[in-house]
Amino acid sequence: MRISDLSRLTGTPVGTIKYYLREGLLPPGQSLGATLTLYGDEHVQRLRLIRALTARGGLSIAATRDVLTAIDQPLEPLDTLRVVHYALPTPVDAAETGAVDEQAPRVDALLRAMGWDISDASPHRNALAASLMDLNRLGMEYSTEELLPYAELAAAAARLDLDRLEHIKDRLRLAEHAAIVVLLLEPVLAVLRRLAQEDESRRRTAWAPGTDGRHTEELH
Amino acid sequence: MRISDLSRLTGTPVGTIKYYLREGLLPPGQSLGATLTLYGDEHVQRLRLIRALTARGGLSIAATRDVLTAIDQPLEPLDTLRVVHYALPTPVDAAETGAVDEQAPRVDALLRAMGWDISDASPHRNALAASLMDLNRLGMEYSTEELLPYAELAAAAARLDLDRLEHIKDRLRLAEHAAIVVLLLEPVLAVLRRLAQEDESRRRTAWAPGTDGRHTEELH
Repeated sequence: MRISDLSRLTGTPVGTIKYYLREGLLPPGQSLGATLTLYGDEHVQRLRLIRALTARGGLSIAATRDVLTAIDQPLEPLDTLRVVHYALPTPVDAAETGAVDEQAPRVDALLRAMGWDISDASPHRNALAASLMDLNRLGMEYSTEELLPYAELAAAAARLDLDRLEHIKDRLRLAEHAAIVVLLLEPVLAVLRRLAQEDESRRRTAWAPGTDGRHTEELH
Repeated sequence: MRISDLSRLTGTPVGTIKYYLREGLLPPGQSLGATLTLYGDEHVQRLRLIRALTARGGLSIAATRDVLTAIDQPLEPLDTLRVVHYALPTPVDAAETGAVDEQAPRVDALLRAMGWDISDASPHRNALAASLMDLNRLGMEYSTEELLPYAELAAAAARLDLDRLEHIKDRLRLAEHAAIVVLLLEPVLAVLRRLAQEDESRRRTAWAPGTDGRHTEELH
């Protein structure tokens, strides 16, 4: 297909596609002379992934390139998820080293309690420490015991994630889908939790002061 | 305390504090003459919340003002979480109405299957539709049956969240903590899932092609 078809199919302006080509995010098409270059289905899929990572995932062009580079390497299966994980931006930026050091023992305690085998180089150790520090500063400390049930839910979610990925036999597709499952399922799970919070708060009419359980009926 | 103490205690530059005061995010201090204004512990806590919402939650000043306005209204308990929910930015921006309409029946089916009572005005309906559309476009469709186990995990997380909130008796503190639990626990849960994914992928040495279960031992 021509670049105009690629633009139409993916809803991406031609100028943006040319930018991605220049930046090396998209592989070049098949040149059939000075004025005609053809693109294939692999360009459609790759372009959609780039759009999802940048527009939805909020990744910079540089971070997107890191993820795509990781995806394009044929790797051992265990390494695939690790490389994708480490190329993706962490959900929280662990900018303050002091905060991270202070919370590191709590992170270690949680990982031990869960029996999780996590690389020392994982960026998620520091990311967890930083987000726990934020909660602390706001007077919302979560103890290891309070975090454990959330960690159990995370483990159950990870099993569902891996159930989905282990059916993918092609290694490049596996890496691509790993990036999607890690990054683009995060907002899905966050939205599901908010929906569940709304429902749960309706069920608990007595969860806050001054409630006698009647106002829920009045609202309906 | 003086503004310099407030700055030191919260790690916020004086200029930034003055900006928040001008923008009405922080209530004015107690003026003791032309050159001395005193601030209290409530300013420390409020300033930390503003920093958490803006720096960690990524909220704009306008969105932060919406959340703080919502927090400062004394509301019925059921309404508190709703107002906080609706003032916070959704985890995914539902910009494309077409995508939302296309996915709305799937969202409805999921809410019905879960028995969740969700307001028609909830922004999270559209947010879920938009994020499902993203997955579809990338060839990663999740059926209602595949989403249900994730929704069950979200419901369990919401019960933990509400367990925490229902112990807070003061209404303004309740609203403040609701904002924190909704927004700042999201990155914690996202990081926990990524950690669990790493551990789970180690446990499943056979989850991808070309693996005979031996490379894990070799890596250790």
